[in-house]
Amino acid sequence: MSSDLSIIKIGGNLIGDNKALDVFLDAFCAMEGPKILVHGGGKLATDLADKLGVKSELIGGRRITDAQSLDIITMVYAGLVNKNIVSKLQARGCNAIGLSGADGNTILAHKRLVREIDFGFVGDVDQINKEVISSLLKAGLIPVFCAMTHNGKGQLLNTNADTIASEIAIAMSGERTTTLYYCFEKKGVLLDVEDENSVIEHINSKKYQELLDEKVIAEGMLPKMQNSMHALANNVNKVCIGDISMLDPLSKLFTTITL
Amino acid sequence: MSSDLSIIKIGGNLIGDNKALDVFLDAFCAMEGPKILVHGGGKLATDLADKLGVKSELIGGRRITDAQSLDIITMVYAGLVNKNIVSKLQARGCNAIGLSGADGNTILAHKRLVREIDFGFVGDVDQINKEVISSLLKAGLIPVFCAMTHNGKGQLLNTNADTIASEIAIAMSGERTTTLYYCFEKKGVLLDVEDENSVIEHINSKKYQELLDEKVIAEGMLPKMQNSMHALANNVNKVCIGDISMLDPLSKLFTTITL
Repeated sequence: MSSDLSIIKIGGNLIGDNKALDVFLDAFCAMEGPKILVHGGGKLATDLADKLGVKSELIGGRRITDAQSLDIITMVYAGLVNKNIVSKLQARGCNAIGLSGADGNTILAHKRLVREIDFGFVGDVDQINKEVISSLLKAGLIPVFCAMTHNGKGQLLNTNADTIASEIAIAMSGERTTTLYYCFEKKGVLLDVEDENSVIEHINSKKYQELLDEKVIAEGMLPKMQNSMHALANNVNKVCIGDISMLDPLSKLFTTITL
Repeated sequence: MSSDLSIIKIGGNLIGDNKALDVFLDAFCAMEGPKILVHGGGKLATDLADKLGVKSELIGGRRITDAQSLDIITMVYAGLVNKNIVSKLQARGCNAIGLSGADGNTILAHKRLVREIDFGFVGDVDQINKEVISSLLKAGLIPVFCAMTHNGKGQLLNTNADTIASEIAIAMSGERTTTLYYCFEKKGVLLDVEDENSVIEHINSKKYQELLDEKVIAEGMLPKMQNSMHALANNVNKVCIGDISMLDPLSKLFTTITL
């Protein structure tokens, strides 16, 4: 293992909220060691679609991505959000480089097969090009990925940011000890969804199964937990789920997940 | 000199014209050796501004860039245009990586001082980070720059693509033999602007002065020629001006400029 690597995915609540984003980016820059940031576009893509009179259709939180929606996502995720984050990181002395999965062929995906729902230009990840990511890290650069991939045949694809973060963490686990952070609006996985402070501090495989059986993990948290368990089963060392304060080394109120 | 390097700037006429862009990208991929592509956004930024009801104001071909226009440019240049070019290059087996000047801190600029005209968020280049560009080239990547820079303090800036291309060529000339290509809609610098085939095949400093005196070089061609002479005066080996066919090794009808 050459060194530890942190992969941090930020939630949509931080995108478009400049004050919260600044707090996050300060904490991100203060983190030691090599790191990778992954982001989506929050509500900004829907805002732009509304202004352009393009209807946004979301099923289970996933956007139905027709050609017009794909252009909007490309503009918002890879352009507006990614470049603003990169320039803000640069202002903090953090040598960020913004990427989509097409850049450096870093993330290959295929267009999701049509079953009950046709999601359009939505991609499921096939392969992470860890050599290119490693060479960027070795050059002292901090990769900032937006939630886009490509199919290697000239087609960009909209891809879930949580999944991109876990797949990158898995791919990089061969050569480094990786920790995956899901940073969102809640303090962690909650025992009681009504009580913001009912954070479950540690979850392992056994506890996960219990929480599933008791239906404590449900709805929005389920895909995040599935991504986490998938990452851990594929050699990611640790997954942490919590809000911005989780990145503070003194913070203790967040959820840590191990096998 | 480790190897030759080609820096190619494509004109706005190729952006948004998928057929012409495909022809260009085929030719670009066929070029041997390390290379760098630089692009703007053609008319697509104005199209988006129109759709959003944002007034586009251009003076001497340069966009007055207020905060709204900057967001539009960031979406179109760094997002839509850059990522589509990168994914199309990837489909051709060309390992492209899209960049703004903020990415990897590759191009530092300052906001243009207000004299007669306040151009807004327009940047004049101060410094090219050639170490990062070199490390990308050494990793086998093909940098694709959009016409954006940053000031290192968190501000993105709209910057002329011709200038970015010449400044990159100048910066890289310390370690490589560089050729700068301005690829646009005409076959070269024309002796008679009405005659598409009246291409001046070779221009040197003496000829340039003669053409200036005779007012053959004027209007749109003047800044391009000034950028070219500035590049040559700063160790760029050669500048070529012409249309897509210029990139074909067998082509002879274009303008070559040397000192």
